[in-house]
Formats: sequence, C-alpha cells, structure tokens
Amino acid sequence: MRATVMYGAGDVRVEDVPDPVLREPTDAIVRVLRSCICGSDLWPYWSMPPSEHGRRMGHEFLGVVEDTGAEVSGFRAGDVVVAPFVWSDGTCDFCREGLQTSCRHGGQWGGDLDGGQGEAVRVPQAPGTLIRLPAGVDEALLPSLLTLSDVLCTGHHAAVKAGVSPRTAVTVIGDGAVGLCAVLAARRLGAERIVLMGHHKERTDLGQEFGATDVIAERGGEGIEKVRDLTGGDGTHTVLECVGTSAAIDMALGIARAGGAVSRVGAAQYTEVPMDFGTFLRNLTLTGGVAPARAYIEELLPDVLDGTIQPGRVFDRTIGLEEVPDGYRAMAERQALKVLIRP
Amino acid sequence: MRATVMYGAGDVRVEDVPDPVLREPTDAIVRVLRSCICGSDLWPYWSMPPSEHGRRMGHEFLGVVEDTGAEVSGFRAGDVVVAPFVWSDGTCDFCREGLQTSCRHGGQWGGDLDGGQGEAVRVPQAPGTLIRLPAGVDEALLPSLLTLSDVLCTGHHAAVKAGVSPRTAVTVIGDGAVGLCAVLAARRLGAERIVLMGHHKERTDLGQEFGATDVIAERGGEGIEKVRDLTGGDGTHTVLECVGTSAAIDMALGIARAGGAVSRVGAAQYTEVPMDFGTFLRNLTLTGGVAPARAYIEELLPDVLDGTIQPGRVFDRTIGLEEVPDGYRAMAERQALKVLIRP
Repeated sequence: MRATVMYGAGDVRVEDVPDPVLREPTDAIVRVLRSCICGSDLWPYWSMPPSEHGRRMGHEFLGVVEDTGAEVSGFRAGDVVVAPFVWSDGTCDFCREGLQTSCRHGGQWGGDLDGGQGEAVRVPQAPGTLIRLPAGVDEALLPSLLTLSDVLCTGHHAAVKAGVSPRTAVTVIGDGAVGLCAVLAARRLGAERIVLMGHHKERTDLGQEFGATDVIAERGGEGIEKVRDLTGGDGTHTVLECVGTSAAIDMALGIARAGGAVSRVGAAQYTEVPMDFGTFLRNLTLTGGVAPARAYIEELLPDVLDGTIQPGRVFDRTIGLEEVPDGYRAMAERQALKVLIRP
Repeated sequence: MRATVMYGAGDVRVEDVPDPVLREPTDAIVRVLRSCICGSDLWPYWSMPPSEHGRRMGHEFLGVVEDTGAEVSGFRAGDVVVAPFVWSDGTCDFCREGLQTSCRHGGQWGGDLDGGQGEAVRVPQAPGTLIRLPAGVDEALLPSLLTLSDVLCTGHHAAVKAGVSPRTAVTVIGDGAVGLCAVLAARRLGAERIVLMGHHKERTDLGQEFGATDVIAERGGEGIEKVRDLTGGDGTHTVLECVGTSAAIDMALGIARAGGAVSRVGAAQYTEVPMDFGTFLRNLTLTGGVAPARAYIEELLPDVLDGTIQPGRVFDRTIGLEEVPDGYRAMAERQALKVLIRP
C-alpha cells in the first residue's frame, strides 16, 4: 500500500510500504477513509534529524474495518470507525479512569507502526481503541467526525481540565485548529465570555463563528493587558493554552484570574514554567496535558452527528494521499489551517 | 502594649508599641490569648535587610474581643475569636468564592499594622474576618483552635486542592507543622495510604500518629524511587508539597502518578517549576497556593472542638511574649517544631 514516511526535516515522501496484516488477536485492519495533518506533525517537519529508515506519519484517521483478530468483538468488516490519536486497551486502571493516554498497554501510531497518513492501518488493541460510527453516516460529516481523533477532543480536554462552565470567563490562546476547537468546546460547556487570542484574521473569524466573543491580536505583556482591560483588571477564570511555547504559557499565567486555572494542551516545547511566588499568592492552577481523546469521543459524538457543532470547518484544504508532502508545506507556511487527506 | 518587632535577619525584639484603637467602623480590638511563630516567619528571620523602622510580626492568633466599631455585628466584648492569617471583607466576589486571600479589601497582619505576636490587635474588616468560638471553650483546646489560623487550614487546603479522597494515595512532603497538618487533613478526607517524607524522627513519629502509613527519610531522586517502590512504580495520585523549595517541588513532580496533582502550600521560594513535556504527557496538575484559611474554619472547627483531630500537638514549646526572640531562635535552629506564645 501507499503511506507517508518522514525522513527528516522538510523531507516527507509517499511510498510503497507493506500491507498491514493481523498480528495479534486484538488487532483490526482499518482502511482509511479520511485522515489529516496535525499541527504537532510540524514539530518533526521542522526539526527531525535525517533518518535512513524514516518514520511513518499520521495519528488521526477514520476508516472502514476490513478484518479483525480472533479476540475482537463489537466490530466487523464494513463498520466505519474513528480512532483516537493513541491506542489503548480500555481495561487497565488508567483507561478505566479515563486517562487512556497513560494506558499500560497502549501506544502511538506511526514511527515503526502504521500511521493514519496511509491507505490502511493495523490497529492494536482494537476493542479498547476504536469507536464505531452509526451505519450509513453522511459522507459530509466525515471531516467533523475525524476531529474526534484529536483536535476536537484536545480542545475539549483543555476546557474540561480548566473547569469551564457557564460561570467562568475563558481565554483561548492560539487560533490554530486546537484553539478553535477549544472555543467550540468552551461554548458547548456553557461559557458566555470567550476571548480568543490570535492574529490570523480568517482563523479568528471562524473562532467567532465557533463562539468567541472577543478577539485579541496582541501578544506578550500587551496581550495580557488587553485581556485584563476586558475583564475589569482581573483576567479570566480559565485560560486554555493551545500553542505549547514558552511565550504562550507565560502569557497564560498573566491572564488567569486569582483562583483560576491555566489548562495547557499545546505540546509543551518548554522545560520550565514561571509558577513563582506571585502565582502562589494568586492560587493559580496549571493543568491539562496530552488529551485522552478516547475518553471523550462517546460524549462528543452525538453533537457532531446532529450538527450541533461543526468542528470539521477547521479543514480548509483537502488533498489526496500523493499530495501529502504539499499538505505539510502548506501548513508549515501557514497557507492552510488544517489539511484533510482523502487517500 | 508589648509586641514583637523584627528589625532585620536574626534581630527580633519585644517592645512597647501604641495600644490599638478603633479606626474604622468595621474594626474590632482583640486581646491575644494565644499566638505562635510560623515557619514562614523564618524566611525574614533569615533574610530580612536591616530596617530602622522595623516590622510588626505574627499572623496567627486567637483572643478575646475587647471593643468593636459601629458596623460590627455578630461579635461583642468578651467573645473568644480566632483570626485567619489574612483579613478579608467577607462580601466581595473572591470572598464569596472562598478565596479570601484575594479579597478586594483584605490584607495581612503585621508590617505597619498590629501582628499576632503582641498583646492586642486592631482587626480590620472584623465581621468578614473573625470566627467566634463557643462560649466557655476549654483552655486545653486553645492550641488546637489556634491552628485554625493557619497551619491546619493550610494543610487542609493542600489536600482539598489536590483532590484527596478515599480513592487517592497521598504523599506529604515535609515534616514541619504544615506537613503534619496536611497528614491530618488527608486522613480526615479519607485517604488510606499516606506517605510522609521527612527526616526528623520525632516529627515523623507524630505524623504517624496523625495518620501517615509510611515514612520516607530519603530526598531527591532517592526519595522519588522510594515512593515509586511503595506504589508499584506509579507514584501517588496526590502530592502535598509543604516545604516551598525548588528541591521539594521537583521531587513532588517526580512522585505524582500520571493524571495526578501536586498541591503546593509551602511558600514558593523558587521562580520556575519543571512542568516540562514529560509532565505534559503524564497530565500532571500543579495546584495549591496560599491557603484561604477563612474558607475552611467553620468546616474544621467541629472536629477540633470534639477532639476528633488534635492539630495543637504540633506545638512542642510554650513561651511568654518576652521570650519570643528565643522562640524564633529555637525554631530556626530546629530545636522546636512550632512555638506557642501565651502573651
């Protein structure tokens, strides 16, 4: 089959790779209907050292079950399924607690295993990992359903961990796909005041359609001042940090109201956070982390199926599998917000 | 009256100061029955630059109401009251949310105002600040009741913010008075496994009487390994950081189980916390801060009054007001755990 392999910074190729086969009785083989490129795929795209062997790419996909191992029940060939961005057994203590990203028998797509940016995927721990979609799901819904793999659940995780509710004002830092999904999630959880910080107008426009009530283009100390101005000097109860840089987390801590929470879902590119004596006096909480998407899919699915939320609008370009290298380039150069792949 | 004034590192004096008088209609004058020296008083005792003017000391006290301003209702002369370690109006949005440490009209004892380590105190915002104790309270209970001012509520805040429950294993870092009260609070909230990290045997012995199930004297990487060994390699769901140093917070993050929380109540002596990509992948939360003692006193008071908990056992030395300089020295040299003052 054809699949995406990254060989180093800027070097993404679509190549012939072995067809996936069942190896464990808990495996399933899924033919990919839709996948996409993630903002986090850009970190290796910018920085991966050259590799002779290469690394299979893609951790967001939905597709059709082709085959299942002997211990897989609940799925059969022909089922349409969505996969969260890590696989997990669904039975260990962490999975039962809803922290499938720490599953004792889980792991990540890609690398030496199949990734989502290919024609098909061997899915380990299929019973714990996959979620079956209703039969005959409308093809027009597939982009929104695909966001359950990662970005929608990641935005939701930020909002849930921060404690967003109708009583909390919210700031979302970052107008990428995760930030926009965080706006959607905060609105869905009842937040009435949602400040979106970003400086790409077409993205913040979509953010306003998703529920942002205020948009702030300024960053750093100026950005902090702007949010404080909007909130009587206090800042917001919850801050959803959807970028992952040191500058973003520093700004987040400056924006949070005393007693509030900064919830981070931008993959941390920093090693230290200034949780100093000032933040101690203000009783700030720093929470969040990599989102256990699997824990949220069943809850979010109905709202996606009935169109209450339309997170698929974050995709502003659709490509075929052979065009994936162009897709990376477009996202890296910010010509595309998020690229959908139809293999 | 006589009161404690600090003029610089190691320079604590008991002096004549003006008697307190009512200035605002919301003031009360309280004659101190018991006060004490706090671990946090040792930070200026070790580091305060010389000051000609000096700084009044003490933020923990209980006493008898002597006089009240025109707008003080609910208290009258003769009532025995306990004061939390900051004063607050009890009516602003932060107070109503239980974050009295961020009160819009609150402040701290001492400095240019009266402190607890004296014969009497002018209490600003008395209606929002003071809690009346039952008439005729047993004098033997006064030490335990005094801990409601700070250390018991601070330990409780650590446990509450971390989410301690019967389902969570707990590690308490630090065997000072706050750490021991955190053990008491965690046990009171139902924790069954409580690991106390400290290396002063007489203190950890008291910690075991308070509910600690395991004691670990090792620190740093060795301490982390010991806690992991006790918990199947996972660490504990909640870590109550009751020291405030960089080494303590680093250790706390190494001890927390994936999905868990580090709750810090040791006054932060650091500017950065290593909440790096590893902690992001483990979904660790860093929470806590300066404890809004006022929010907890009513809840904890019954258990102190009926002897269910005996936090006053953290006092291992009692002195008169004139001996306060000796009390500082004893705590600084670790000859005393916590010093009670009977003015």
